[in-house]
Formats: sequence, C-alpha cells, structure tokens
Amino acid sequence: MKRALYLSEQLQNTVLPNPMVGAVIVRDGKVLGEGLHENYGGKHAEENALIHCRINGYDPAESEMYVTLEPCSFSNAGKHNGPCTEKIIAAGIKTVVIARADPNPLVRGAGIRALRDAGIAVEWAVLEEEAARLNRIYEVLIQNKRPYIHLKAAITMDGFIAAADNSSKWISGPESRKRVMEFRRESDAVLVGRRTFEIDSPSLSVHDEDGQDLPGPQPEKIVISRNENPEQSLEEFLLTLRQRGLFRILVEGGREVFNSFLKAGYWDRLTVFQTPDLLGRGVPFCGDLGISGIDGKMVLEDRETRISGRDIEIDGYREGFRCLRV
Amino acid sequence: MKRALYLSEQLQNTVLPNPMVGAVIVRDGKVLGEGLHENYGGKHAEENALIHCRINGYDPAESEMYVTLEPCSFSNAGKHNGPCTEKIIAAGIKTVVIARADPNPLVRGAGIRALRDAGIAVEWAVLEEEAARLNRIYEVLIQNKRPYIHLKAAITMDGFIAAADNSSKWISGPESRKRVMEFRRESDAVLVGRRTFEIDSPSLSVHDEDGQDLPGPQPEKIVISRNENPEQSLEEFLLTLRQRGLFRILVEGGREVFNSFLKAGYWDRLTVFQTPDLLGRGVPFCGDLGISGIDGKMVLEDRETRISGRDIEIDGYREGFRCLRV
Repeated sequence: MKRALYLSEQLQNTVLPNPMVGAVIVRDGKVLGEGLHENYGGKHAEENALIHCRINGYDPAESEMYVTLEPCSFSNAGKHNGPCTEKIIAAGIKTVVIARADPNPLVRGAGIRALRDAGIAVEWAVLEEEAARLNRIYEVLIQNKRPYIHLKAAITMDGFIAAADNSSKWISGPESRKRVMEFRRESDAVLVGRRTFEIDSPSLSVHDEDGQDLPGPQPEKIVISRNENPEQSLEEFLLTLRQRGLFRILVEGGREVFNSFLKAGYWDRLTVFQTPDLLGRGVPFCGDLGISGIDGKMVLEDRETRISGRDIEIDGYREGFRCLRV
Repeated sequence: MKRALYLSEQLQNTVLPNPMVGAVIVRDGKVLGEGLHENYGGKHAEENALIHCRINGYDPAESEMYVTLEPCSFSNAGKHNGPCTEKIIAAGIKTVVIARADPNPLVRGAGIRALRDAGIAVEWAVLEEEAARLNRIYEVLIQNKRPYIHLKAAITMDGFIAAADNSSKWISGPESRKRVMEFRRESDAVLVGRRTFEIDSPSLSVHDEDGQDLPGPQPEKIVISRNENPEQSLEEFLLTLRQRGLFRILVEGGREVFNSFLKAGYWDRLTVFQTPDLLGRGVPFCGDLGISGIDGKMVLEDRETRISGRDIEIDGYREGFRCLRV
C-alpha cells in the first residue's frame, strides 16, 4: 500500500478535480503491475495496473490489488471511464486492499459492496489517514462542495499583519516572499480583499524578486469586496469559483477577508510566516471570531514548522479533517 | 580561545554578579595550564591558570595566555583579588589574547593598557561576540545597572495571551510548562503583575506536574502593581532588586507588565511559547508600544526555535546587544 500511495503522490494534484490514485497488483509477494490515474479523463489507476500487469506477461487472476481509493462502481454521462469494479471482477482478482473509501456520494461504499458481491475479499481503511491527507484537495471538493482554501499571512510575533498606519512592506523576508510564489504557482486563483488590494497594490502573480512575472501559467486574480455583490453569500461565491474550475484558492488577506473565511469555516490550510518582531498594536490577523473563552480556540492540525530566512513558516490544517469517515 | 570560552561556559552563571571567565596558557602549541573563575570571591581565571601551569611543572614565562575577558587592573575594598594584570606581568607572560574587553568602567581598557605598558603583546576582540553573549547577564548588570530581564509568554498564533474572558489555562501545553520550570530555576525572582496574580493565581514556583514544589532553591516571588508604590519608577524598583542580589528576573506577565518592560527597554531575552491556535480577539501580548509604522518594529535577535510538544518555543534577545563595544 505504501508503494501505491507513493505512486499516487507523484501525480502532484495534476488530475484535479479527480483524486490522485495509485494501484499495485501483487501475487506471492511479487509485484506484477502498477498503475496511476495519470490524467483527468484518462484511464483509472486500477485499469492501468491491470494493463501493466499484462504487458509484463502476467495474468492478474488470483492476485491481490492494493489501491489507494475505493474503485468506482458507476457510469454516467460525464464520466470518461466505465466502472473499475467490473474490470477488477473480470480480471479475476482475488483480494482488493483499499486505503480510503471514496467520499464521492456516487461511490461511498458501493465499490466495496460490488467487489464483495462478486466474491472478492475486500479489506479497507489500510493507511486511510495517509491516503485522505494526500487527497486533501479532492476531499474538500467532494465533501465541502467548494474550492480548497489556503490562507496565507505574514504576522508579527504578537499577531499583526500590518502596523497601525497600515504599512506592512515588508513584514516578512525575501525567503518567505519567494515561498509565496510557490503557493501561487500551486493555486488556480489568488484572492484578496478590496482594501488590501488598494493599500498594498499586490501583484498577486508568480514573479521574481524584481517583480517580473515568471513564465508558466499564472493564477487568476480575484479581488472581493462586501459591497460588490451584496446579494451573494460567500458560500455561493465559492460555488461559482468551483464551477468555473478554480479548485485551489490562495487567500492572501486582509483582516476582513481572513475573518470571513475563518468564521465560516471556509478554510483548509493556513500558512503563517511569523516574523521575530513586535508591533504592540496594528492590524490584527483576523479580528473577532466570536470566541470568548480559551476552550473555544480554533486549532491548527498536522502543523509543520520550518525556518524561512529570518521568519518561521508555520503550516497547518483545519482541525477535524482526518475525522472524516465514509 | 575556543577552549577558554568552552571552559568559562561550564560555570553556568554560578559566579554572578561576576562574569564567567576562562583562561588557557599555551607555549609552542602546547597547553601548559587552564583556569576558571570558579566561585564568587575566589581566585580569578588568570591566576588559577598560572597556578595550574606551575602544578603541571611548567614555568609560564614566555608563554601566551588566552583569556575570555580583559584581565582586571584594579584593587579596592570590596574586591577579593589583587589585579590580575600584575600577576600576569610578574609571571613573564609574552602575549595575552583577550576575547572581550571588560565593560566594567573600573577596567574598560585599563587592563589592556597595563599589560602593554609592561611590554606584553596584547590582542583583543578575538571571538568577542561569543564571549559577550556568554556573559549576557554580567554585561547587563554592569552596563545597564539593572537585573537581567527575561520575558516569558504563552501566545496564540494570532498574538493573544488570554481569551476575551481572561481565561488562559492552558494556552500552552505540558512540555512548555515544564520548560518554564527550567526558566524559574535559572532565575533569582519571578515577577508578575497584580492582575495576573489575582486572575491566574500562578504558583510562580519550581514545581512538578501535580503542582508540588520541587526540592532545591526557589526563586523569590514578586507581584507588582502600579498603585503600590506610586512614587517609585520602574527603573528605581529594578535597581532595588539588583541591590538585593536579585540578578535574574523572569517576568511572566500580564499584558501591562510586558508593556511597561518592553516600552522602557527593560528586557534582555524573550521566550514565547507559541500555540497552533487562533482566538481572533482576547488579551494581546503587550498592547501599545507607541509604534505606528512597520519600520518602527521591535526586533528579536539571535532567535532560536524549537518544537515544544504542540507549541513552538521561540527564544531571542533584544536587538543591539552585540553592538556594545568598549
């Protein structure tokens, strides 16, 4: 299963909105074939593994398949592939080991049932957390029906994203700003509030140290303000982004935007570049979230910390992600 | 010199208010003797190195002495030792290499001059920063004429030391609280503001996880309030602590106390236990410091970061320390 997860990890979110999936076929401890879901619309990992097995000169019958996500069991108009379960059954696979059941309501256990009904031994929830974390973005797209939201802020040690006079250039150092370019590169859109846009006039593009845009795809730039579309809720707005194919949104501030997203729970990952500075007063990171006691605190999970020049990069995820079960 | 610094470091601030000093005597690349200023009132490192040299059967004449602090050149009523410069001259030492000139105004270059006047070659400012950092506490006691101030706070990612309802137990995790016991152990007194004392009723002692005081010396407990002694300035108050032999003060809050100490520049080290939590609003770390623009930020230097359970321990020093020159 570790091999299958490793394989799927190589896909680096290139198949969105589909999940990254890897499959390995094994018999008597020997790997007969491996497969990935290599591109959106292309063959699924299970089918590719079966094909690879046969190319290698082996019959997959009576073998075990390790797959990182529950095999699909349905067909419909928008879907490019027939059900994987049928292909697995037809190939005579004896045992299927699944890391993560598919949170997609069209599958969600139906794949497991289809395999079991055909007499195949099915084991699941093997390295499930690892598999779910790997597909965080897919999980959010499917379960939360909105884009994956990555909040990014540069904050002083005492919690300010700008000084009292709104000045914030530069709270964080050049290494941290370079790292932000990586985040923008991994995003389909970069979003800021109108005020931040007007005060900081950020480029929001992937650029070099001199401000020159780098070659390659650029994220879409989105500037939001409360008054622009008073009828539309944030939820509806995010749904329109999702429908337009913007699956990964990097939110870069300012305070009011962070506040809205945090308060509504519309966030998945938070990266803070923390600087070794004190301001005493200034623009706080997010403002009132309606939390009055220490027990109500919002918690960052799976946190990772690294040194970023003179700053510290603190990266974590919304609490409760790993508790999702199907 | 590295050996001399290493030796002096072993003293672990046990000779306060004196500095930690190490000396090594070398001839033709061979170490003839080593010495430390082992206890307050005891012999100085230079004399101990000369004695050690002779115990080893060597005459220190024509050798080089490496010493981490400028040798003293004066005598007075309160001083336990005669001038080291005289002992070095009498021993016929050829060259003296000094890491840090002594910031004590009674020495401050006079030791170097006395040696040179006697025809000894003197080199100084060798690994000076390392030597000054090692004796940070001594440097503050001598130069700032106040105790060494270590601020310690547990702060959320967005800069709060307590929630809006003043609750703060526990912002930081057990590992961080255990680490605070080490800080208390290294301090002569622990200081908090009246409000913090009344709201949190902290023990301020070195205790175990169950709150039982641990054996060994306990720091003095100091609770301050603005109204108690309205005539006395913070500066005067700190001077009285210094005079009472309280050389290392651990300041544990709250906001107003942090504010007073930071604003006045009465701090030397800051340790923040940062938690991966957000509160949105609450009691800020230190409040208004009179900083309005980003360029006015207070900077933490020589920062070190380590993981402390679910918290991050961020440890650093007041900016400008290493710029002190004599």
